[in-house]
Amino acid sequence: MEQHSKSTKKKVVAVVGGGLVGALNACYFAKRGFEVEVFESREDIRHAKVVKGRSINLALSHRGRQALKHVGMEETIVSKGIPMNARMIHSVSGKWSEIPYGKKGQYILSVDRANLNKELLTAAEKYPNTKLNFDYKLLDWSGDTGAMTFARPDGSKEHITVDLIVGCDGAFSAIRKQFLRRSRFNFSQTYIPHGYLELTMPPNNGEFAMKPNYLHIWPRNTFMMIALPNLDKTFTCTLFMPFEDFEKITTGDEVIEFFQKYFTDAIPLIGVDALQRDFFRLPAQAMVSVKCSPYHIDDKCVLMGDAAHAVVPFYGQGMNAGFEDCLVLNEVMDQFNEDFSAVLPEYSRVRVPDDHAIADLAMYNYVEMRAHVNSKWFLFRKRVDTILHTLMPKTIIPLYTMVTFTRTRYHDAVKRWHWQDKVINQGLLGCATAAILGGSYLVIKYPPDMSNVTLEKMWSRVLALKTF
Amino acid sequence: MEQHSKSTKKKVVAVVGGGLVGALNACYFAKRGFEVEVFESREDIRHAKVVKGRSINLALSHRGRQALKHVGMEETIVSKGIPMNARMIHSVSGKWSEIPYGKKGQYILSVDRANLNKELLTAAEKYPNTKLNFDYKLLDWSGDTGAMTFARPDGSKEHITVDLIVGCDGAFSAIRKQFLRRSRFNFSQTYIPHGYLELTMPPNNGEFAMKPNYLHIWPRNTFMMIALPNLDKTFTCTLFMPFEDFEKITTGDEVIEFFQKYFTDAIPLIGVDALQRDFFRLPAQAMVSVKCSPYHIDDKCVLMGDAAHAVVPFYGQGMNAGFEDCLVLNEVMDQFNEDFSAVLPEYSRVRVPDDHAIADLAMYNYVEMRAHVNSKWFLFRKRVDTILHTLMPKTIIPLYTMVTFTRTRYHDAVKRWHWQDKVINQGLLGCATAAILGGSYLVIKYPPDMSNVTLEKMWSRVLALKTF
Repeated sequence: MEQHSKSTKKKVVAVVGGGLVGALNACYFAKRGFEVEVFESREDIRHAKVVKGRSINLALSHRGRQALKHVGMEETIVSKGIPMNARMIHSVSGKWSEIPYGKKGQYILSVDRANLNKELLTAAEKYPNTKLNFDYKLLDWSGDTGAMTFARPDGSKEHITVDLIVGCDGAFSAIRKQFLRRSRFNFSQTYIPHGYLELTMPPNNGEFAMKPNYLHIWPRNTFMMIALPNLDKTFTCTLFMPFEDFEKITTGDEVIEFFQKYFTDAIPLIGVDALQRDFFRLPAQAMVSVKCSPYHIDDKCVLMGDAAHAVVPFYGQGMNAGFEDCLVLNEVMDQFNEDFSAVLPEYSRVRVPDDHAIADLAMYNYVEMRAHVNSKWFLFRKRVDTILHTLMPKTIIPLYTMVTFTRTRYHDAVKRWHWQDKVINQGLLGCATAAILGGSYLVIKYPPDMSNVTLEKMWSRVLALKTF
Repeated sequence: MEQHSKSTKKKVVAVVGGGLVGALNACYFAKRGFEVEVFESREDIRHAKVVKGRSINLALSHRGRQALKHVGMEETIVSKGIPMNARMIHSVSGKWSEIPYGKKGQYILSVDRANLNKELLTAAEKYPNTKLNFDYKLLDWSGDTGAMTFARPDGSKEHITVDLIVGCDGAFSAIRKQFLRRSRFNFSQTYIPHGYLELTMPPNNGEFAMKPNYLHIWPRNTFMMIALPNLDKTFTCTLFMPFEDFEKITTGDEVIEFFQKYFTDAIPLIGVDALQRDFFRLPAQAMVSVKCSPYHIDDKCVLMGDAAHAVVPFYGQGMNAGFEDCLVLNEVMDQFNEDFSAVLPEYSRVRVPDDHAIADLAMYNYVEMRAHVNSKWFLFRKRVDTILHTLMPKTIIPLYTMVTFTRTRYHDAVKRWHWQDKVINQGLLGCATAAILGGSYLVIKYPPDMSNVTLEKMWSRVLALKTF
């Protein structure tokens, strides 16, 4: 907080939504010296008895951490996270096997959504130029004038005119609805056929019931279960399955039968009674992917986080992408000296393709996580990628690494991934041919970066491995 | 009208929107004996002084005609249409060349949108069980109960509860907005970067200024102009161009300069003064492609026409697809004995993939019309397709023919197109090879339909051509 500038600027920024991205964004705008008003339609999560909806824990990775770091929040949050170094695949037969996320020392963090939200609200509130307004319902607003009307908790109305409206109000954004009425606003919302359901795996004799430093996955092709560790030594298990399959399970006995068939090892760890009870506590929840463009109206309004790009949860990037939004906007604010009429169009221009790319990747991983990880070819390719990355760390970077452990722009990561994939598959074909022909080559020139690498050069290095 | 059944059924159907699809749909429901209430937010177009917005003329083809025929309207409408047998391509240098739409005798019809709408409203009104309500604004409605509230022309409110709400209220449908609030409703709206602008080409000495039985096209790769004939011997010219290019033309002189460069032959036909004046009469209009799914809420509400699937205008199928919607719903109504709880889900199931296919095709033609028709390969392939279609009318059917002159389901047409394209391109490669090798084959077995055709068989027929 020591960087907090006591600026003389008086521009008023209204952040609509006090969730993860809204609260972090409030810190960013406050740090720049704007007068920040946060409007949240629900009660203050810090005083709430029951926190409703949404997933319990989230995977925090590089992009999210960098965004937190900028406002001095990284350490606080990381200290309450649980590192997950690898995926732990649970086979139907009960075998466990690891697939590391990256190189040794690279991990993602399981963090508690509610705690993270609370910490960020408290951080925002520490800025004297920030005011948090809870139980404020947005009634009306204008993208032309910045005039906004809210219903206060007591039912009375508050009118406020601001310089910038920042819509951080989530996948079903009220702010976005007014974008939809304007011409030439592109928008899509796509529900996937799967729903999800959360179950708790309690501690076993005061300890984690499974190895804690893993993201556990039970891939079953058309459906899957995952489990992330919590600080209280529980795991939150999430079952992803087509709605029509959820509908087939209507009794406690059917739950147990289903688990015995597919997730045998999880039954004793969750407990038969808890399983039969919690499976029906809530109906399976829907998942939506939202894309839109542009993100702004004139110099008055901008959408960020899930309001701009809700993604399905299978790449663990929803929150990270939302946090990175704050960092990207901040960079553009520097670049254009906080002139909103230049900042907002530029933000849309640079950020839309990246958010669309991560939305597509998340959809792709929706298949990869539940199906591909069962495939021998997939596991072989993962291993090839890792070896190539070790040999040529600047030339071959696994997609997961680019997305999770770097700030490579998402759409650049996708482009590079397609290029690498083509090169590696052609190379493997070459290797196979060479192996059949019995040939073996040794070339020792190590290409320093991608731009200097030809297919021949790169594959000669791979073939050279055969001689070690 | 003679088929109009005086049924004892008393179910009430509210058709929201009295445009082309709404008016036709009213005829369909009335013919089945439902009590039909049409609610249109604008005034009665039959008494309107100025008809605002939307394109002036439209291309009516087989699907639309079949739908009109079912309610006895085909002849009336066709008699006021102008047949267009071919595209007339205007090159930059002023050369004209024809590309027929199909076989001899196959044509599409240029019809006047306003007149068609008027005729359909009058037809609907002839059913004693139909009531048309103009200047009725939808204020609220419920997909659960069928309760609707409208503001009457005098400002008073009308409450009505109906058995079925049919949303035919266009690309910006008010009915669809409530679908958006429900979970698991997929929706996308995509604006293309092009806008359009309409110009009138007056008669020349009392006659059409250009050959009337053509759809005239000036393809210019990134933009194009088209012209359709009207009964009053004018042509309506429509210029499609990226918005950013429209923005570059700001003065009358720039208009003329632009036309001199790209549409020289049109200048004297439209007239310099009219061109300079009409170019700036209205700003360029946006075009949107809308897809959604499902089309229904329970047994209470269904979206049809542009409300369900606005398409870009480049396949001339927007109205035809909307009219075919009425025919498809009618078929499903027969199949499920008018039980809405079975009819509506089945209608969504069968119709969504077809509407999505025509939306994609229209987007594809958006490139084909302005760019591909300039390509030698494209023209060659068109000719090959036509020859193959003549030789094997059941095996090779050009995509345009399937879409425009048959009721082949749109998504089947696309599947078949992809199959044919693969086969024909492989065949052409084979022909080229055979030609080089100097080989020539003659096989006389004519395959009766696609399922019995192998690549070899089919291409042997093509190669056989060489021997004629």
